[in-house]
Amino acid sequence: MLVVTALGGNALLRRGEPMTAENQRRNIRIAAEALAPVANEHQLVLSHGNGPQVGLLALQGAAYTDVETYPLDVLGAETEGMVGYMIEQELGNLLPFERPFATLLTMIEVDPGDPAFRNPTKFIGPVYAKAEADRVAREKGWVFKQDGDKWRRVVASPEPKRIFELRPIKWLLERNTIVIAAGGGGIPTTYEPGAKRKLVGVECVIDKDLASELLARELDADLFVMLTDADAVYVDWGKPTQKAIRRASPSALGRMQFAAGSMGPKVEAACRFVSATGKRAAIGALADLGRIIAGEAGTTVSSNESGIVYAA
Amino acid sequence: MLVVTALGGNALLRRGEPMTAENQRRNIRIAAEALAPVANEHQLVLSHGNGPQVGLLALQGAAYTDVETYPLDVLGAETEGMVGYMIEQELGNLLPFERPFATLLTMIEVDPGDPAFRNPTKFIGPVYAKAEADRVAREKGWVFKQDGDKWRRVVASPEPKRIFELRPIKWLLERNTIVIAAGGGGIPTTYEPGAKRKLVGVECVIDKDLASELLARELDADLFVMLTDADAVYVDWGKPTQKAIRRASPSALGRMQFAAGSMGPKVEAACRFVSATGKRAAIGALADLGRIIAGEAGTTVSSNESGIVYAA
Repeated sequence: MLVVTALGGNALLRRGEPMTAENQRRNIRIAAEALAPVANEHQLVLSHGNGPQVGLLALQGAAYTDVETYPLDVLGAETEGMVGYMIEQELGNLLPFERPFATLLTMIEVDPGDPAFRNPTKFIGPVYAKAEADRVAREKGWVFKQDGDKWRRVVASPEPKRIFELRPIKWLLERNTIVIAAGGGGIPTTYEPGAKRKLVGVECVIDKDLASELLARELDADLFVMLTDADAVYVDWGKPTQKAIRRASPSALGRMQFAAGSMGPKVEAACRFVSATGKRAAIGALADLGRIIAGEAGTTVSSNESGIVYAA
Repeated sequence: MLVVTALGGNALLRRGEPMTAENQRRNIRIAAEALAPVANEHQLVLSHGNGPQVGLLALQGAAYTDVETYPLDVLGAETEGMVGYMIEQELGNLLPFERPFATLLTMIEVDPGDPAFRNPTKFIGPVYAKAEADRVAREKGWVFKQDGDKWRRVVASPEPKRIFELRPIKWLLERNTIVIAAGGGGIPTTYEPGAKRKLVGVECVIDKDLASELLARELDADLFVMLTDADAVYVDWGKPTQKAIRRASPSALGRMQFAAGSMGPKVEAACRFVSATGKRAAIGALADLGRIIAGEAGTTVSSNESGIVYAA
């Protein structure tokens, strides 16, 4: 069975934790412990978030003023190397030496006409006081929005259209390689207008779960799992009436509303995958991964369901 | 024909040029122009240096004091992502869309008993005044050596022993994929002492040319090319008596002395490759790549030669 698993940001760094290399490594080691049994039993493709990592690179770049901060596509490429390295090493340490690994740099095409570019929504990098945000906005042409009582850069989060390295990923899977790909949602790229077909980087961020869904779909994965803080998708999250969804059909789940910044894209990705492939998608906590795959934990989205089944 | 090509640091950034993303890209675009015809005609594996890139990340990390600078293995992984991305994109723009690409994170094993660890020689990161160097040395346990009138961190440059991602690279080459691998000499790793086989990163730098040679040898490449500033290997470099070496046997060339920091490792790598495989190695300038492959420019090392042939 081919399992595509998207590791949420908290699998790499817990909220509030200083973003040292050691902290990242420790968290990745915990993730690797959960992933190793799956890797031993199945074909495995891993994707991962990179929000805090890109944030740190942006902060470091801003602190060193001799060279202008690198654009987001380049920072994304750096994080694919860094996070991929740690995952490959830590998971490799738990698997038989013979099992091949490949961390692939992944470029994903976005449409410059995507409506997301007219309304950037994705927070990125450090927070600023209003005056400072205004200054940086003028200087760099960045867009800022309020985040709590501070201001923060926002970039567009367009739809992923095409994964350029799809064939190499498929060829490596044929050899049972564990492939780490589409880190951080992939590096956003687009073709410049003009006669010549020229691919360039774009200053935006592709949602990691939607990028992972595209990857899972194009690879014809048997199961697409998104791992996050929550142990399931909940209705009325945070209210006394909250209930965990155990199983759902994509059409029933797709009619419900979830938070745009967290569960929304995961639910959307799960519904897309199941609707397009007829295969199973699941959302749940890292620690439950084995039981999620067995259909015994997390929220499973499947076209075998006819509505919503809540946890008892 | 399978050609393994190592791009020198100046293919990415000219000496003295500010290390902006645009400058890197422009230089990589020039390199891509030289590489595209080779890629169209042959199987191609590319490796590249990362000295200035790791230097910049170290400077940026040092400037942002909230989080401790990441260790060299992690910075190396970041540069494999960044430089690989730019090469993949720029070279891809010059080749038919159908040609597959893969930039692979590459870990290379080093021996903790390597004598290089007892005598670190590789300069890395920013220059410091003496007092500052002493302070940082005490604080971080780094070793410093004099570099001109300033002081600079030195790390060991041990021998590359094994490339972990070798099989995926081979499988991708079977499909005519252009593979970018072993960037910056690969990420140095070693097994921790102890019963459990645990691979960890090492704070050192593997020579890019020696790592590329190991890659070329293990892939059984037909030709191993190292591209640099110089248009050939010279004897008496910089003296009135300087002469370009056009062709050489590995044994004759191996008896000659070259600068440890520049041509030395390239000559060593070329001699190793030819001695081990009986195939051809070459050293020369990026702009001459086509003619180097044809044996009409650069310095060719081959076991068909019986001594040294100088340029007319």
